[in-house]
Amino acid sequence: MTDLETYTKKVAQQAKLASRKLAVATGEQKNAWLRLSAARIRERSGELTEENKKDLAKAPEYGLSDAQIDRLRLTDERLEGIASALEEVALLPDPIGEVIGSNSRPNGLMVTQVRVPLGVVFFIYESRPNVTADAAALCAKSGNAVILRGGKEAFHSNMAIYRLLTETLEEQGLPKHAVQLVETIDRDAVGHFLKMDEYIDVTIPRGGKSLIERVAGEATMPVIKHFDGICHVYIDQNTDLEMAKDILVNSKCQRTGVCNTAESFLVHAAIADEFLPIAGKTLIENGVEIRGDEKVRALIPLAIAATDEDYRTEYLALKISAKVVDDIDAAIHHINDYGSHHTDVIVTTNLNAARQFTAEVDSSAVIVNASTRFNDGGEFGLGAEIGISTDKFHARGPCGLKELTSYKYIAYGDGQIR
Amino acid sequence: MTDLETYTKKVAQQAKLASRKLAVATGEQKNAWLRLSAARIRERSGELTEENKKDLAKAPEYGLSDAQIDRLRLTDERLEGIASALEEVALLPDPIGEVIGSNSRPNGLMVTQVRVPLGVVFFIYESRPNVTADAAALCAKSGNAVILRGGKEAFHSNMAIYRLLTETLEEQGLPKHAVQLVETIDRDAVGHFLKMDEYIDVTIPRGGKSLIERVAGEATMPVIKHFDGICHVYIDQNTDLEMAKDILVNSKCQRTGVCNTAESFLVHAAIADEFLPIAGKTLIENGVEIRGDEKVRALIPLAIAATDEDYRTEYLALKISAKVVDDIDAAIHHINDYGSHHTDVIVTTNLNAARQFTAEVDSSAVIVNASTRFNDGGEFGLGAEIGISTDKFHARGPCGLKELTSYKYIAYGDGQIR
Repeated sequence: MTDLETYTKKVAQQAKLASRKLAVATGEQKNAWLRLSAARIRERSGELTEENKKDLAKAPEYGLSDAQIDRLRLTDERLEGIASALEEVALLPDPIGEVIGSNSRPNGLMVTQVRVPLGVVFFIYESRPNVTADAAALCAKSGNAVILRGGKEAFHSNMAIYRLLTETLEEQGLPKHAVQLVETIDRDAVGHFLKMDEYIDVTIPRGGKSLIERVAGEATMPVIKHFDGICHVYIDQNTDLEMAKDILVNSKCQRTGVCNTAESFLVHAAIADEFLPIAGKTLIENGVEIRGDEKVRALIPLAIAATDEDYRTEYLALKISAKVVDDIDAAIHHINDYGSHHTDVIVTTNLNAARQFTAEVDSSAVIVNASTRFNDGGEFGLGAEIGISTDKFHARGPCGLKELTSYKYIAYGDGQIR
Repeated sequence: MTDLETYTKKVAQQAKLASRKLAVATGEQKNAWLRLSAARIRERSGELTEENKKDLAKAPEYGLSDAQIDRLRLTDERLEGIASALEEVALLPDPIGEVIGSNSRPNGLMVTQVRVPLGVVFFIYESRPNVTADAAALCAKSGNAVILRGGKEAFHSNMAIYRLLTETLEEQGLPKHAVQLVETIDRDAVGHFLKMDEYIDVTIPRGGKSLIERVAGEATMPVIKHFDGICHVYIDQNTDLEMAKDILVNSKCQRTGVCNTAESFLVHAAIADEFLPIAGKTLIENGVEIRGDEKVRALIPLAIAATDEDYRTEYLALKISAKVVDDIDAAIHHINDYGSHHTDVIVTTNLNAARQFTAEVDSSAVIVNASTRFNDGGEFGLGAEIGISTDKFHARGPCGLKELTSYKYIAYGDGQIR
């Protein structure tokens, strides 16, 4: 075994052992730890910004852009954000121990289905140092031990946050290895962890498509994957055109670089003449490039021609594809074929259309008369989210505390035999 | 593309298309099909037994044992069992469309989490022809299109059942390809399907460990896996000895070849003197070979010495390993380390012991004062089961209709934007 193999195996084993203790920790122990960690982050912000400076100094060497460097920077305001986020997780209800089903059997056996942690989460992320605290909080609150693997660009910041978080674990009677950060930037470490399905119950990669594809390909345990969001807004025949325009513009423009932004819109042929000129004008005023079919271009002269590939593209930019459809069936068909089953919206005043669309569009979120941007853990009321799943298995859409859990059957009898 | 590749791809694509229609079929359509299929099986039993004879004639060529040949045989009684099983699935509540969560947001957005089918199930089984009908019924009732791959030994019987089931689908307005049976015994077909995660949402292998390992290794989509059941009965210090003995004997002897049979028992040191001689006597009278540690052998002279490996062995036979433990902590520790997280029982009159055991033993079913044999979809009240999952992800323990589903978020607004 290489040193790296020995090290990663030790980390994984420690996590497994810690997960057993954490699974039976009380909500109050977990919450007290979260609140104490928030206090420590506030008290020792100087220490954190000092360590952050080491990462900032190395940023040019890693070739980070100015925007990336800005996201890496820990300011007092951002540290306050990290601390409050920990306190918010403390306020969420404890998912563990919830009875999610029960069955009183004819023979007197009382069967309950009780929510339990998954066990050990391997969390890989590329982004900002606040994710270190967020992920640790969500995993521990849901009773899971976590192995955190952050990007090398934030290594010192992550280590500093990690030290603060973990030094208070044992004070609360929680296992020391409930939260572990991979203390090496060696890329091979990830590959070793991905083979350890004996110790790790789920891997969650948060980052670009290539990271997720690599992880999904190599992992021997389940992976919560987050791929493209090719989200649609469909404007139905019977609709409030003003509302439709506002929803479309918000879905496309409110934030372009995120998965739940609209990348395509479809308009019922019966209202195309009326809607497209208005919508086109506002989108173009907002700097959006429109790529449409022939009918769209006839009504929005500034639109350019869309290829078939455009309708399958996640632009993540001020661009949108557009198409006129003959009816709602054609819209649903197009969305199921060209979309990515992420978030799709219908704007309509017709109840039957709303019912048909929500039933037949096979996406993690199907929304009537509101922006695509609402498909989000916070907006849907899940509390904080650890990621968004584009899978149908286990968890679909925003993943909060409950999505980090499994269940077991607990049955009480008084001597039943078969 | 080879002919086999073309064929398997066509089957998978047909399943995907069918799954969209099936997802929005009404409960009454699905139930009418189930009842009609049951009627056809009764009416045309002659046709089924004729086809079954072809399999029976080939059985010696496949080297089947007498017991295997017996299991393969379709009698009138067994056909009646198949028909009634279809009718029982019709009586189960439709899982699709159930609202499993909801959140009324401060901005007026009404968010619901609604149960939907997974999509396409690839079901691989080695066993008796009745599984063809059972699996088709459970998948279709839960709105999933299914690709059935039965064992070559039952090929003609499976084909005959499949023909009866599918000829009535379209009469009920259900898609023709909702149920498909792989019409070749070529072993390579399985490998092709396992690569088609684009069309198949989950694979369920039902059979021996080598089949499940092969499928889990090759599959590109999620797999519901069913591995070993190394199940324990722990007899606590405070206990009803008579009840403990009955539960132990039932857990071991009622049926030995199944996953929820006990393979090991642990006795608290404080009652070992009293309990082991009684339990040993009854087990031995039932033909059970006991493999114990030194303390067990001192009290049950006919017991033979257990190796460490014995405590990790799924005998599936009239054998059981036994061990005296110092306290409940030692019992829980042993079960979590040596068991397979399947089904574990405590026999106790002490409430705290029951609470600790059910909280700390990490198994799909943890049972107080009843036989291990109750960890079963029917016994737990799930209705029929398609399999038992030894995973923690998505589904754990017995898998009924609900475990064949996913969910989507459906949100209604009146113009909300962010």
